[in-house]
Amino acid sequence: MEMVQEGVTAPLGYQAAGIHCGVKKARKDLALIYTDTPAHAAAMFTTNSVVAAPVVVDRIQLERSAVVRAILVNSGNANACTGERGLNDAWAMVKATAAALGIAESEVLVSSTGVIGQYLPIDSILTGVPLAVERLGADGTGAAEAIRTTDTFSKEAAVRCMVGGTRVTVGGMAKGSGMIAPNMATMLAFVTTDARITPEVLRSATRQAVDRSFHRISVDGDTSTNDMVAVLANGCAENPVIDSEQGPGYAAFYEALEHVLVALAKMIVTDGEGATKFVEISVTDAATEEEAAKAARAVANSNLVKTALNGEDANWGRILAAIGNAGITFDPAHVEIRFGNVPILRPNYLIDFSEEDAKEVLSRKDILITIRLHRGTASALFWTCDLSREYVTINANYRT
Amino acid sequence: MEMVQEGVTAPLGYQAAGIHCGVKKARKDLALIYTDTPAHAAAMFTTNSVVAAPVVVDRIQLERSAVVRAILVNSGNANACTGERGLNDAWAMVKATAAALGIAESEVLVSSTGVIGQYLPIDSILTGVPLAVERLGADGTGAAEAIRTTDTFSKEAAVRCMVGGTRVTVGGMAKGSGMIAPNMATMLAFVTTDARITPEVLRSATRQAVDRSFHRISVDGDTSTNDMVAVLANGCAENPVIDSEQGPGYAAFYEALEHVLVALAKMIVTDGEGATKFVEISVTDAATEEEAAKAARAVANSNLVKTALNGEDANWGRILAAIGNAGITFDPAHVEIRFGNVPILRPNYLIDFSEEDAKEVLSRKDILITIRLHRGTASALFWTCDLSREYVTINANYRT
Repeated sequence: MEMVQEGVTAPLGYQAAGIHCGVKKARKDLALIYTDTPAHAAAMFTTNSVVAAPVVVDRIQLERSAVVRAILVNSGNANACTGERGLNDAWAMVKATAAALGIAESEVLVSSTGVIGQYLPIDSILTGVPLAVERLGADGTGAAEAIRTTDTFSKEAAVRCMVGGTRVTVGGMAKGSGMIAPNMATMLAFVTTDARITPEVLRSATRQAVDRSFHRISVDGDTSTNDMVAVLANGCAENPVIDSEQGPGYAAFYEALEHVLVALAKMIVTDGEGATKFVEISVTDAATEEEAAKAARAVANSNLVKTALNGEDANWGRILAAIGNAGITFDPAHVEIRFGNVPILRPNYLIDFSEEDAKEVLSRKDILITIRLHRGTASALFWTCDLSREYVTINANYRT
Repeated sequence: MEMVQEGVTAPLGYQAAGIHCGVKKARKDLALIYTDTPAHAAAMFTTNSVVAAPVVVDRIQLERSAVVRAILVNSGNANACTGERGLNDAWAMVKATAAALGIAESEVLVSSTGVIGQYLPIDSILTGVPLAVERLGADGTGAAEAIRTTDTFSKEAAVRCMVGGTRVTVGGMAKGSGMIAPNMATMLAFVTTDARITPEVLRSATRQAVDRSFHRISVDGDTSTNDMVAVLANGCAENPVIDSEQGPGYAAFYEALEHVLVALAKMIVTDGEGATKFVEISVTDAATEEEAAKAARAVANSNLVKTALNGEDANWGRILAAIGNAGITFDPAHVEIRFGNVPILRPNYLIDFSEEDAKEVLSRKDILITIRLHRGTASALFWTCDLSREYVTINANYRT
């Protein structure tokens, strides 16, 4: 597997563009991804029961058609909680994109991110679509830039791998920095691949990779109305088709896909609103992966743990109490906690650690917390950030 | 029902004391409540699966004996995550209290609150017990003071009501300001009553009143290892015994009990770490009370809602998105949201509210948010506070 410094246009057959159309005052706000060769699509959407208009539209689109050729995304306005008019606006985005590209309406997905509860400036977007089509090219950076909201940097990742002797590429871009929680919160990720893969296998690979990436990050425990991850596979690499999870090539492809998703997910945490620390939580020796993920998620979502990390305080008691809230069965007297390589809590509540060593680890920007449950052999990783005064400042006056 | 400016010693037959024994440097740290007449006891404990030693001990005590005569509480150290030695220390507190009062060991409950993961300075506590017994008296304020940790004020409440022509009193004290969440997080409440009531009815009244008070508050969504609510009923009022929820007198007693618990719960929220706003969330027109409580809890626990309240920003979209995370079924297009008397969101996403009017309500210290789901006739109240920079400051360096 080889990393590439590119994004959604790294795989064969994809073009992208990012332009300014007028939803935002001056910055890029409209992104388009296009593949001339129709692609199989797999997508996952927010678990919030309040869903934005583009999510409603995309679900219908994916039921109607198994292939996708374009994704249009605007930033600056989420087109959420906007009723009938919001739905009409989302459909108008679909139609305009299909018309400008000369493709079927069923081959278009749309997505929006930004402020909730305000109508889209749909005229600006419709005017922008032909311009975006005109600008389509091999460079994905403009598109990655155009989907940003409070993001402080663009998020792109791509890797190449070998599937049955053929080079296959997976590329992606994402946005998200606030309202990030497990189960996808204003978090958009668009992933492209030139792999030849059946729709069913693409869907199950996507589901598993999302479970181990975007469902394993948390900034503030909130989820949003607009989240989605979409993966397009246009087959342009002409590799021997991947048609089974047991078959040759699947493992290499899955590894590449998970790598891109995890890389994008980690970038979102690094860009967490007000974050000063990137924290990897590794729960090991659990009975099941699900149990490990539950424990890690509870620790990652605890405001008390996150503020202690902000203060570089080795408060292992809050970590243990957070696991106690995870809804799993375990014996706290068996738990071990390490910060970096420093054992903090050992079995039977042995806590004779060096505060200096702990402080040294916690003063870093990247912190690894390892939690051993001593119940089995399963494990899970989770990524989060600290909770800072700046998080409060950013979110206290988001609309104004 | 008549409010009284007292606490746990307001009902007949109770004495209390609060002293300094040396767990904390200088402030009071040991509280004792005593009733010469044995009392029926009902208690509820933390749902966290990591439980502190005193919780383990109290559960055993309550299984062994239906009557309680004393509760000993120390602050400054939670005796949590301290293994075998912590259990021995908690039992030593039981024995010392029984010996000093000349009562059975089975008649004593103990409780601890403060730092996690450090052994109790048990000698200081054991030395303090006879002193606390010596100081027992009619004034409950010292005891209320002695159970404080990060609390900025003591929390006491008491009311009198009439049960079958007899005056019955319910009094209580509580502590808690951080780690407060639904389902009880370092939150202690000790409630006394002179009502004559059967143990079964006392237990079910306690369960329901806790559900509508301490389970309806949230500061930061975390729960702790030490929470407990204990209600003692010594029968000294000599009212006609309350032996059924349908019988005479129950309604008056229940109302008094719920009032005291809600008053204490609201004080905890008012004292929320770093809180600048007290927020009442009223969910109405729900299908069931449980559904209403779920929606209210999701709104109260959302960091994004809480930071918007801190910034006095009328961000109704975050409220709606939080309800979307509540795990209930509802149609967002039917939801109405008011801040105070100002309609913010009306059905079908009508949002032509006055930002000035909304700002005026949000600039107050006490804010009422009403959410109508338009699904039925059930409702629930929930109390929370905003999330401020000060919360982060307080919690970033709690141990140091």
